[in-house]
Amino acid sequence: MAPDLTTTSSPRFLGTAAAVAESNRPCATESGNEDASIMSSSPEQNPVDAVAVMDYFDSNLDSVTGRLRDDFAASFYQNLGPNEREILSKRFRNFFNHSVYGGKMTRSRLSFGVYNSLCRNISPADAQSALTVVLSIELLQATFLVIDDVMDGGETRRGKPCWHRMPEVGLTALNHALRLQNFVNISIMNAIPNHKNVGPILKTVWETIQISSDGQELDGLSASSENCTFDRYRQIVANKTSRYTFYYPMAVALLLADETAHLNEVLKISEAFGYFFQAQDDLLDFLDNDTASGKTCCDIREGKCTWFACKTIEKLANSPDKLDTFWKCYGSSDPSNVTRAREIMLECDLLADFRLFERDAIAKLNTQIAEFPLPAVRPALRIILQGLIGRKK
Amino acid sequence: MAPDLTTTSSPRFLGTAAAVAESNRPCATESGNEDASIMSSSPEQNPVDAVAVMDYFDSNLDSVTGRLRDDFAASFYQNLGPNEREILSKRFRNFFNHSVYGGKMTRSRLSFGVYNSLCRNISPADAQSALTVVLSIELLQATFLVIDDVMDGGETRRGKPCWHRMPEVGLTALNHALRLQNFVNISIMNAIPNHKNVGPILKTVWETIQISSDGQELDGLSASSENCTFDRYRQIVANKTSRYTFYYPMAVALLLADETAHLNEVLKISEAFGYFFQAQDDLLDFLDNDTASGKTCCDIREGKCTWFACKTIEKLANSPDKLDTFWKCYGSSDPSNVTRAREIMLECDLLADFRLFERDAIAKLNTQIAEFPLPAVRPALRIILQGLIGRKK
Repeated sequence: MAPDLTTTSSPRFLGTAAAVAESNRPCATESGNEDASIMSSSPEQNPVDAVAVMDYFDSNLDSVTGRLRDDFAASFYQNLGPNEREILSKRFRNFFNHSVYGGKMTRSRLSFGVYNSLCRNISPADAQSALTVVLSIELLQATFLVIDDVMDGGETRRGKPCWHRMPEVGLTALNHALRLQNFVNISIMNAIPNHKNVGPILKTVWETIQISSDGQELDGLSASSENCTFDRYRQIVANKTSRYTFYYPMAVALLLADETAHLNEVLKISEAFGYFFQAQDDLLDFLDNDTASGKTCCDIREGKCTWFACKTIEKLANSPDKLDTFWKCYGSSDPSNVTRAREIMLECDLLADFRLFERDAIAKLNTQIAEFPLPAVRPALRIILQGLIGRKK
Repeated sequence: MAPDLTTTSSPRFLGTAAAVAESNRPCATESGNEDASIMSSSPEQNPVDAVAVMDYFDSNLDSVTGRLRDDFAASFYQNLGPNEREILSKRFRNFFNHSVYGGKMTRSRLSFGVYNSLCRNISPADAQSALTVVLSIELLQATFLVIDDVMDGGETRRGKPCWHRMPEVGLTALNHALRLQNFVNISIMNAIPNHKNVGPILKTVWETIQISSDGQELDGLSASSENCTFDRYRQIVANKTSRYTFYYPMAVALLLADETAHLNEVLKISEAFGYFFQAQDDLLDFLDNDTASGKTCCDIREGKCTWFACKTIEKLANSPDKLDTFWKCYGSSDPSNVTRAREIMLECDLLADFRLFERDAIAKLNTQIAEFPLPAVRPALRIILQGLIGRKK
């Protein structure tokens, strides 16, 4: 069957899925029915409400994700035969189950928390469509991970074989990833066809993809001594991490709530969060050392431009011989070189530097949160920061 | 710098590119200034106009594609340093030059021809923005080819090494393809931000990507005797070829012209065109036999569900032994097996069958064109058909 392309007033252009949301009014402009709301007051006034929001997220996650999966696996446009429909549906369903599930869903939790902090008395329909939209970031995350794993020749992901390592998959994984990235647009349009900010929300997705791609590229091109500077590191992180992990979830939440006046401030605090988050990731990789197998410390082996590499260069500025040895070993797959590079880094007392950086970053983030122009969002931001401090994974 | 996401009334959300079109009014609803039009009369009345349209296409192709490339290679959102900006810009520019150029641009020519056949007195601004939008299919085509070449382990494409075979590229080609697919959305939104059908045009892109992906998947899963039927073949072609090569260009043209009443008929004729086109492709592959190297006849080696494979199965219905031999040889990379499979196919006198099919398909297409509900489009459809008949590549 041909899709209905003939009118912009037809909200759903994928004919197979049931309507997720009947009402798509931005909550900030039109309030819902209090009796039907998922919360009785706004979360900035009562921390218990933040728990209620996450309880709602958790208890609705399976049904909303399941509906996205069903849409993804059943939305064929052509008049396929029942046999072909079943084959493709089963295959795309397996892909979705394998690739989208299993993460911590931190990005969509952040997004949903911020959205709820801005909206009082969200109707069940608005809550469902908002949850569908914020889950788009998990679909995008799955897309990136599947492609990254192919690019990096990865073996396992989230405790399972990478999708391209699964039987009868291989490089068709790329076709699946492409379809999932494309479905992000479709699912957002389906969930909020009449929302006044559906255009800016889609643009936020496209910007995120483009900027993440730029960050990915810059990251891959930075494995040499002259490029391993904190200036380059800041640029990689701003593009690769901050946008996608912090700005996208928060910007989507603000746009869903039709709260569009402070997106620049969201970008600013996202960069600070992203920098802290990425440096912590670098720490976790640096600490995860198993000299017996030589299989950990991936960043050292891959010669990545990390916080620790940049700090090493900074501290060895007056030790050219040691710096030279470091660069000979950094980015080598030989386990003895990995060990030597790591020894040099430890001799530089980087962990003490990292603790100073960490203390300073937390203090700055606390100040930025206190000054964030939307007071209602501050508790959600504090929860995010608390969740990051001292994280072990 | 943060992109301006705060308002839907700001037409361009990529700050770096100059506005392509000042006017984005659908031509069918508001006519331009006749003095400034690119044609003095409509092409259905005078075949010379079709030549004028293609002349316009050819003489503006470089400038519009160049502007798309500049946008693609220079549209960074983050405050990158000049060095990083130059590195990324150069890399994305090289990718665009390598991957987008070099094709015959038949899909965008078809689209632009149909658009012009529906519009009298197109203003220069409308012509430029329409050309930008129809060229989106070439960007999508490049995306698919780059990813297909990685999936198939391709060596050369359009007489050059595949992009992933180029020095310092490798699997980062996937990142580039992802960015280009995403840029299709961005470039369309930039070219016609205020066009009333920008939403349906974007949806057409998303449907095309999803359907092509379904066709690709079905194609890859059909390499066995029980699946090699004309019913399966029809489904593969409808998804993989017809949508992307015929429906997308024509639907975009109609939507640009705000001629939205006959998209189902466009789909129907697209399927007929696509079937004919794909069967011809299968013929070209079948005829392209170099037994010395064994490197051609890719379809036989890869065990593809082609018109010729389906016909062979049909004709060997009463020759189970021969059919068995055929299936043992079909889909084998051993040159002697390829040769044997091809011999069996030739013994079936498939070329005579193909000529009958071809004659019938052309007659049916001529009838469909004569009955096509938009008379203005019929000459453009006839030109397409004439271009396909007897094609050698």
